Parts: sequence; C-alpha cells; structure tokens
Amino acid sequence: MTNIISREIQLVSRPNGMPTAANFTIAQTQIKPLQDGQILVRNLYLSVDPYMRGRMNEGKSYVPPFELGKALEGGAVGEVIESRAQEFKPGDVVTSNFGWREYFTAAPKELHPVNREVQPLSVYLGALGMTGMTAWVGLNLVDVKAGDTIFISGAAGAVGNVAGQLAKLRGCHVIGSAGSAEKVKFLLEECGFDRAFNYNSGPVLEQLNQAAPDGIDVYFDNVGGETLQAALSALRVHGRIIACGSISGYNKPQPGPNNLFNMIGKRLTMKGLLVRDWLDRQGEFEQEVGGYFQAGKLKSQETVVVGIDQAVGAFIGLFEGKNLGKMVVKLD
Amino acid sequence: MTNIISREIQLVSRPNGMPTAANFTIAQTQIKPLQDGQILVRNLYLSVDPYMRGRMNEGKSYVPPFELGKALEGGAVGEVIESRAQEFKPGDVVTSNFGWREYFTAAPKELHPVNREVQPLSVYLGALGMTGMTAWVGLNLVDVKAGDTIFISGAAGAVGNVAGQLAKLRGCHVIGSAGSAEKVKFLLEECGFDRAFNYNSGPVLEQLNQAAPDGIDVYFDNVGGETLQAALSALRVHGRIIACGSISGYNKPQPGPNNLFNMIGKRLTMKGLLVRDWLDRQGEFEQEVGGYFQAGKLKSQETVVVGIDQAVGAFIGLFEGKNLGKMVVKLD
Repeated sequence: MTNIISREIQLVSRPNGMPTAANFTIAQTQIKPLQDGQILVRNLYLSVDPYMRGRMNEGKSYVPPFELGKALEGGAVGEVIESRAQEFKPGDVVTSNFGWREYFTAAPKELHPVNREVQPLSVYLGALGMTGMTAWVGLNLVDVKAGDTIFISGAAGAVGNVAGQLAKLRGCHVIGSAGSAEKVKFLLEECGFDRAFNYNSGPVLEQLNQAAPDGIDVYFDNVGGETLQAALSALRVHGRIIACGSISGYNKPQPGPNNLFNMIGKRLTMKGLLVRDWLDRQGEFEQEVGGYFQAGKLKSQETVVVGIDQAVGAFIGLFEGKNLGKMVVKLD
Repeated sequence: MTNIISREIQLVSRPNGMPTAANFTIAQTQIKPLQDGQILVRNLYLSVDPYMRGRMNEGKSYVPPFELGKALEGGAVGEVIESRAQEFKPGDVVTSNFGWREYFTAAPKELHPVNREVQPLSVYLGALGMTGMTAWVGLNLVDVKAGDTIFISGAAGAVGNVAGQLAKLRGCHVIGSAGSAEKVKFLLEECGFDRAFNYNSGPVLEQLNQAAPDGIDVYFDNVGGETLQAALSALRVHGRIIACGSISGYNKPQPGPNNLFNMIGKRLTMKGLLVRDWLDRQGEFEQEVGGYFQAGKLKSQETVVVGIDQAVGAFIGLFEGKNLGKMVVKLD
C-alpha cells in the first residue's frame, strides 16, 4: 500500500433553512496503513439523499447529527483495493456507509458485498440499494396488494419511482405526483404509472381527485405538506399511509395537515419508516427486487454528476427537484 | 297499548362553531300502534357524546349527517314496555341507537339486551357501553401491554378514564391530562392513574415531559391539537398513537401538529378508531370489562342530568369540560 490521500466532503456549519455551498468544505486526509483484518476501499459512487438534511441539524435525536469537521456519512459503492481480511479480495465490489470520501479502510462487517457483474454499479445505491429497499419495505409495511389504488408523491425520486414500479408489479393502480412535465412523462412512459400529475400545475387536491375520482387505498408519502393533506382527503375508509419522507418541510418548518381528523373518521393507519430497521430483510429484498432488475422488469433511473467536488451541488439540487430518479456522484 | 306521546330532541339548524340551544328544539310525536314483531321501549337514560357534534355538520361523509327536523340519533338504555316479538318481554332492559327520545318502537335486531340487575343501568352507556368499549378497542388496536407507559388525554372523560383504568389492569404506567384540578384529583385518587396534570395549568409539552421524563410508548388521543403535538414529541421510537377523538377541534378548525415528522424519525404507528367497526367483539368486551366492573376493579364515573329538556345543555357542556366521566341524561 502506497501513500494514499483521500478527498472528502465535510460539514463546516449547520444550514439554517436551505443548505448552501458555504456549509461544506472539501478536505484531504491521509489514509492510515492497513492493519490485519482491515480492507482498503476506493469509492466508485456516492449516494446523495434528502434524509441527510435532517442529520445536518443540531440537537438530541434518535439519529446523531453529523459532526462538524468530519466527512458526511452516507451510502457509497466502492471497489476493494487491498485486503488484509479473508472475507474480501481486491476487485470485490462493496457498499458501505462511510459517506462522501474517495478512500477508506474498514472491517469486513462494515462492508456489504454486491455482484460486480451488475451494471451500472450505482444501482446498488438506488433501485437495488437503500432507496429501492425503502420503497419495498414501505409497500410491505402496510401490505400493499393487487387491486389497491396507491398514490405516491415525490414519485420521480429515488424511492418513489421504485415504489411505483413495484406496486405495478403487485397489480396495483398507481398514481404519482412530481414537480415537472418531464418527470410526469417519465412516470407514465418509463415507469408504467397509470396516472401522474405535476404538482406545480395546480392545487394537489384538485389534481388528485381528478386522477383518483373514487379515492385511494394507500398513500406513499415522500413529501408531506399540501400533498399529505390532499391524500388525507382522498383516502378511503381503512386506508393506509406510509410515512417515508417529508421533503417539503426539510428546509422550512411546516404546519401539519388541517384534516388529520380523517385518521379517526376513516379509521386510517399511518406507519413511519426508516429502512435501517429492516436490514435483516436485505437478502430477501435483493433476491426479489434484484430478480426484477435482472429480468428487465424494473427500470433503474439515475441522475449522475461526476466528481466529488460536485456532491454538494447535487445535494442542494435535491431540494430544487433537479434529480430524476436516484442522485449519485460518480468519482473520476 | 294506550296512546303514547313521546318527547324528542330535534336538530333544527346546523351549528356554526360551538352549538347553542337555538340549534335544537323539543318536539312531541305520537307513537304508532305496535305491529307484529315490534317492541315498544321507554328510554331510561340517553347518551350524550362529543362525536355527535360531527354529525351535526352538513356534507358528504362516511357517516351521514343528522337530518334537520328529526330526533338526534344516539345511544340510550331503556325498558321494554310491550312486546309483539318473542325475543323480548316487558321488563327487559335494552340498549339501542334511536337517540334522544322518550319512547320508540323497534325490531328485535335493533335492540341489544343487557343485564337489568346491574346498577346503575346507565353504566351500559358508559363503562360497559360504547365509550367503555371504545377504550378497550383502542388499547387492543395498538396492543397495549404490561410495562408500556401510556399517556391519555381527555382522561377524565367517558373514554379516557376507562382507558386509564384498563391500562392499569394490564400493568401499564398511566399518565393522564384533564382540564381541572378536580379532574386531576379524580384520576389520581379514584382511577389509579400514576401521574396526571391539568392542561390549563401550563404548556402541555412541559407538563408531559415532567410527568414522563423518559418518554411514552403509547398516546391515547381524545383531544388532538396542542396535546397531540406534545405527545408526538414525547413518544419513544416505535411508539403508537390511538387516534380516537379530537375534541379540541370539533367546534373550530385547527392546524395539524407541526412535528408530524416524528412519525418517520421515530417510526411511529397511528391508528384511527371508530367503535362501530368492532361490534362483532362486543360479547368479548362485555365479558372482560363487565367482569372487572362486577368484581369492583373498574370504577364507573358519570355526570347525570335529569330530564330530556336538559339534554342540549348537557351536550354543550361536554365542550366546556363540565362532565366527569360519562355524561348521561336520566329521564324522569
């Protein structure tokens, strides 16, 4: 092992509202020599995810906040460069959670092996990674089944588009909302959604009622805010809500929906979801959803930026709706 | 059967905000002669419930609104006066849903027999009736069990006080909120709550954090509003919410909680409840909770007003917190 310098993205100050480039810096660290039982990994792709915004806030929480002056933790897919552990050999491809850095050393249990024959390997951050698994867990969480009418917000995002495609494979009637005509076209033409609308084109409730005149059975919430309120109105008796994300409120506080009384009157169930509770099901997910992908039944859509210095811009872009599907950084 | 005149309370106009006496009238109707297969019942007690406010509003809903110019539907316990059906005989005591009237005729399937030896018979509207069953169903709905810390709002109301007593019988740590010092005393001294506070004495979140410094596992919501928001903050990871009532918002619209994001981060489950979905479990409820009552393990608390002409005042009083336990009208 030669002397390796790794670039990494560090948080230097906590954003107040929308993050800006000034909240981050790029730093260099020297990788320490490999010890017995350790593996050296060079990252190929970094995952860029909305949930990371939550960890940029200070304060006691169930997930510790990112530390200032340290590399941002997060998903990545990389290649083993050198190994002093029998579990891995150079050339193996692995996913990990060491985040926005070029190189790192790790113990075997901190790495998850994936199939290097699958292309592009970034799919292990998206459709076959944590966002795809989030979609799959969400559908399982409220038992989404054939015949259900499901409405998915943030439908052109990393979680949403996979949720919609998996729901179609289960025999659901699938409706999606997204923020541009291009995204709506993607949902209808590429992902097989039955109906889709642009939430910037008019009131969400009006458009949802038009797309689902008889109501919906399930709402897969990635955005919160006005869309959650509309869904509470459109849900049928005994409907279910998957509380997966609330991106509309990540950078500015929001009042809750003014019609939460529908939870009672319609006897709704709402369940919150963090995928990390479900890691013991990862093998089952990879087998089922990996099978769909290999068979060409599941489309993987990514927005790829190149270079670690583009990661911050890509992250800010998530809140401006710049991603179609999963946002990833390809390291050059 | 002689000529019977029955007085009844009718809705004459739909309340805008808080109901007033002017929204109601008292009317007389003549009971039609009994047909074969019919039973004549004289009501002994009328049930007065917050949920009736919802049915006073107009508009398409899952429960049809009360009709103007007709007697208000609702629970009652009465005595069979005359029967032309083999299922009932004079002297039998029954519950029904014909509401705020002195006499009515009904088919056997519209009547539910109860034990006339139990005293007071009004307990079949409260602890052993729909509000007690609501409490019991709520605890079952989210699997409340020994060791859970449960917080109950509206705890001195008809549903809340029974929910708290049943939770104590299950081995829970029970915290309640109510609107007066007298009610807090009732919860602590009569119902066996571990902790209780008066929400009019200070911010709910502050008082809840003081009562439950390590958080809560379950929130039994009867009030919504500020208290729901505080509970979302106090709930632990994988906590559960029973969405049973939202009395703080029945007469004026309310914004939703501004911290619904806790549903995701803490992976909470919220389930809405209407007791009428569970009527096939009524026998099981009566056996279990009736057993507690007969054994002196469950206290039944009622606020009784006398005379059908007092029903409207009793109903309005619910929103002013005038009831301790179940509000009933005793017919003279």
